[in-house]
Amino acid sequence: MAGGVLDDFVAAAAELAEASGPIISELFRKNIAVDRKADRTLVTQADRDAETVMREMIAVGFPEHGFVGEEFGADGENSEYVWVIDPLDGTHAFISGLPTFGTLIALCRQGVPIVGVINQPVSGERWLGVEGRPTQFRQGSEVGEARTRVCPSLDDAILYATSPAMFSDAGAAAFAEVSSHSAVTRFGTDCYAYGLVASGHGDLVIEANMNIYDYLALVPVVAGAGGVITDWLGAPLTMGSGETVIASGDRRPHAAALQILSTAAN
Amino acid sequence: MAGGVLDDFVAAAAELAEASGPIISELFRKNIAVDRKADRTLVTQADRDAETVMREMIAVGFPEHGFVGEEFGADGENSEYVWVIDPLDGTHAFISGLPTFGTLIALCRQGVPIVGVINQPVSGERWLGVEGRPTQFRQGSEVGEARTRVCPSLDDAILYATSPAMFSDAGAAAFAEVSSHSAVTRFGTDCYAYGLVASGHGDLVIEANMNIYDYLALVPVVAGAGGVITDWLGAPLTMGSGETVIASGDRRPHAAALQILSTAAN
Repeated sequence: MAGGVLDDFVAAAAELAEASGPIISELFRKNIAVDRKADRTLVTQADRDAETVMREMIAVGFPEHGFVGEEFGADGENSEYVWVIDPLDGTHAFISGLPTFGTLIALCRQGVPIVGVINQPVSGERWLGVEGRPTQFRQGSEVGEARTRVCPSLDDAILYATSPAMFSDAGAAAFAEVSSHSAVTRFGTDCYAYGLVASGHGDLVIEANMNIYDYLALVPVVAGAGGVITDWLGAPLTMGSGETVIASGDRRPHAAALQILSTAAN
Repeated sequence: MAGGVLDDFVAAAAELAEASGPIISELFRKNIAVDRKADRTLVTQADRDAETVMREMIAVGFPEHGFVGEEFGADGENSEYVWVIDPLDGTHAFISGLPTFGTLIALCRQGVPIVGVINQPVSGERWLGVEGRPTQFRQGSEVGEARTRVCPSLDDAILYATSPAMFSDAGAAAFAEVSSHSAVTRFGTDCYAYGLVASGHGDLVIEANMNIYDYLALVPVVAGAGGVITDWLGAPLTMGSGETVIASGDRRPHAAALQILSTAAN
């Protein structure tokens, strides 16, 4: 793919973050309705309005591209290029007043994520990953590269997951075993944890019960920062992947955790 | 107590927050050593330097007052006035790059907390509670009152706790039952959750394995915002209290949760 075309996509991803950010941050800690969807998960006006704006921007800017969003489903998902977006990853954090949620924006080519954004509109933090390029971290007007840190073994690892309730029984047992070997385990982190790993503030994220819009954006961010991100069997994450994710800044804790997790992956 | 004297104490509490905040925020997300204490908990230079500065300020400003800090122990703890301080509540969050930690500053008179501060130096948020006064919430230069919100029943409650690992087996079972009746359960919150309840962004915090420096500062903050905070038997929290805490913005979820928790309190 020509760099110029990729640059257009990268610019578009940044514009989606710029457009959706204020919609979400203006509703943060406001008294807004929380609705329960058919799948029992929660949704707010912030989720819906942010996705609507991004969906319209892609329809206008790249009418030949597909779009998969958490709130309003799939449109052209078999196109060569598909945007896969979670307008508000961490709706529970959002409605609980905690700024650890984010907007996830992925662009896939033939099912493989080539551009990814994690945008935190309250703190103004944004991670931008592009296949084959270093991950960029921006906070307000400050821009730099995000790099993972060295972590020789699980013993040294700071481990994150969103909630102990996201695991199956077998998954919970495997997670508990990894956790017992890790230095610190921290719950309540959503997509923010993957940004922290990309920036070298933590080491490992292990999650389950995930959808493609929960993780495809994370792939270019983590990989471009020097980390590794796969499912619990060690396979790359694409539009055809399942529900488990493990991301690590250093390959060694990833390998050690996979030995434990692979027994619970299915 | 004369208002003028209390005002001096309130001003001193704010000065402690002002002095300790930059010490902690400058070390946030920096590559600093993490040490394991004799009690197996973790500590950093940020915890120690912040407590040292505050301890010295009280020794100079109020030499007749006692001081109890998490890192360097008790000094004059039987004085009429005792400062009870956790320089860094949420060391795990701090070393994991998550801005949900805080500095807790309490002043007790005859064992009863009369002034409390929750200071979050990264976001610039500060809650200041004073016995008999409305709780003040400050973010940067903006100052207002913090008020809890209405929450008629457990079903409507957003529930927080720092970690599922903080509970005994009986406590974990009781927490799980309360959680099963609540709308949302969120882990990973430390003292920040009590600020969110005081400001009406959430409803309930239930925690265990707590020390007096983990909760005394929270008492004036939550009470002054219209909430209720006790141990799991419903008793007020003082310097003589035990290890369990429940805080609620509305009395009704507090009463409902106590019915479940009291069986596990000891």
